Amino acid sequence: MHILITGAAGMIGRKLTARLIKDGGVAGQSIDRLTLTDVVAPEKPAGFGGKADLVTADLASEGVATKLLADRPQMIFHLAGVVSGEAETNLEKGYRANLQGMQALLETIRTAGGGYKPKVVFTSSIAVFGAPFPPAGIPDDFHTTPLTSYGTQKAMCELQLADYSRRGILDGVGIRLPTICVRPGKPNKAASGFFSGIIREPLAGMEAILPVADTVRHTHASPRSAVGFLVHAAGLPRDRLGPRINLNMPGVCVTVAEQIEALARIAGPKVAARIRREPDELIMRIVAGWSERFDVKRSLELGFTAEKTFDEIIRVHIEDELGGKIAP
Amino acid sequence: MHILITGAAGMIGRKLTARLIKDGGVAGQSIDRLTLTDVVAPEKPAGFGGKADLVTADLASEGVATKLLADRPQMIFHLAGVVSGEAETNLEKGYRANLQGMQALLETIRTAGGGYKPKVVFTSSIAVFGAPFPPAGIPDDFHTTPLTSYGTQKAMCELQLADYSRRGILDGVGIRLPTICVRPGKPNKAASGFFSGIIREPLAGMEAILPVADTVRHTHASPRSAVGFLVHAAGLPRDRLGPRINLNMPGVCVTVAEQIEALARIAGPKVAARIRREPDELIMRIVAGWSERFDVKRSLELGFTAEKTFDEIIRVHIEDELGGKIAP
Repeated sequence: MHILITGAAGMIGRKLTARLIKDGGVAGQSIDRLTLTDVVAPEKPAGFGGKADLVTADLASEGVATKLLADRPQMIFHLAGVVSGEAETNLEKGYRANLQGMQALLETIRTAGGGYKPKVVFTSSIAVFGAPFPPAGIPDDFHTTPLTSYGTQKAMCELQLADYSRRGILDGVGIRLPTICVRPGKPNKAASGFFSGIIREPLAGMEAILPVADTVRHTHASPRSAVGFLVHAAGLPRDRLGPRINLNMPGVCVTVAEQIEALARIAGPKVAARIRREPDELIMRIVAGWSERFDVKRSLELGFTAEKTFDEIIRVHIEDELGGKIAP
Repeated sequence: MHILITGAAGMIGRKLTARLIKDGGVAGQSIDRLTLTDVVAPEKPAGFGGKADLVTADLASEGVATKLLADRPQMIFHLAGVVSGEAETNLEKGYRANLQGMQALLETIRTAGGGYKPKVVFTSSIAVFGAPFPPAGIPDDFHTTPLTSYGTQKAMCELQLADYSRRGILDGVGIRLPTICVRPGKPNKAASGFFSGIIREPLAGMEAILPVADTVRHTHASPRSAVGFLVHAAGLPRDRLGPRINLNMPGVCVTVAEQIEALARIAGPKVAARIRREPDELIMRIVAGWSERFDVKRSLELGFTAEKTFDEIIRVHIEDELGGKIAP
């Protein structure tokens, strides 16, 4: 099988590539070719025996999708896009990367001819939903009234992906990722950054800032689970999915206080004490508009799995990013 | 005020133009200029004392939106698009006319500069919803999982219109029209055509075909009400509307049997006897997937009004289209 991954240089893209190579196959087929593309140069994948093409290009640019699909990859993981904050500060760039990039892919598939009908696994986001939310959790079929341009673009992509699937042009599935935690790497300026920061920094021996109250509740899944969702979606048969192809993914719903308790249990109170409370009115206001919990009956029935506790999420981070070691 | 109407040569476009000229103003301002555009030549509006520009052009073509907005109309009624059946048979044309046409308009507004922020009244459709439906009626906040490409395009436009409104680029409102009945003119091949045909043809002395069972239930509003929705939306202040700007419109929810009873009451049993039952499996199957009723609490609170009974809908047709006369 020939697989195309867009956004391959990003955090999820790199982890997905490594997982696919480790598994050797996906959806019951072995992988003999990988095309990895991103706006920044993707790395040559380690340990892959098949053919690997690395393409540094912007999917929304004329001719790029045509080139990427010329050899008709049977499976496409479409992860490329700009993040929430950037889509809000640069409207033009957001619509271009997040909507037009997707549309370039869809149109090239539609006009390829010769019965080409790839599987397309699309990373959508819970940002397709906008407050107010039902207290019991947001179901798959909650209306999409996003309160960000990023969420708007993802919701528009979901609609067109569903339409193209319904029409038999491709075999699509949209995965609405919850907040990914613990995100590896350096702290960033994203309003949601502290959810990862209050775990990652203390485990690395550094101080972390907590800008919101302990009572803030949110749903998280590890990077490992996010990759697991994509791989599971790739293997889902069309008839099990039905016409509603965009799915809320499972995750661990906890308060910040519960996140910190889990950290203390796993790494000790000294590590947990590296969190400094420094309330930030702006971040508190932004976070107040975010979803807290989801009704994921459907994705669980379809076999998607995530961590069950926040302790597990922390252990995944220690295993996958810290080589099993915690800074004393 | 300078008003732009796209799709001005269509049935609703022509009636809206006539209504605006008759009223002399909209949203509390007098009208001194009309720009009417469509892919077929719009007619010169009768009885208008101001400046009228007629532009035959395709909104999705390069430069057309720029030309139409060069003089910065303060109010835009965006009605242009291809209908449901055509968007389904010609996917490329549907996305071009219904999505890219809207996007050309939105982008030209965004980049106009100089504080340009027009009111944009967009005709969406109840086709944004897909079965299964709640039996008590589809509320405004029912999820949009359309089962046609037309509905998909309208739902995508609604999302982008809401995003651009939220960002203060324009002042948008989306009007989800129910089935318009009685549609004037010749019978057409649309699957929904019979809802109008079984009233229009008998009143004109001709036979009409009823392809579905008497028990089929549907929601209708007259062309006069549809124009009324647009005019009322044009006058709605932004703060009354809030962030959820796409609204289900009211209508009359009746069965086909009730439509026929109303016809017999108003025009007599001889006229109602001109309906011939000729079941059509394909049309029955299509209609079975359509919405029956809506929860329009919000649009009623916002002051939108439609007919209260199907008798009224028939009387509107006799007044507006038949000069008050029924074929004996």
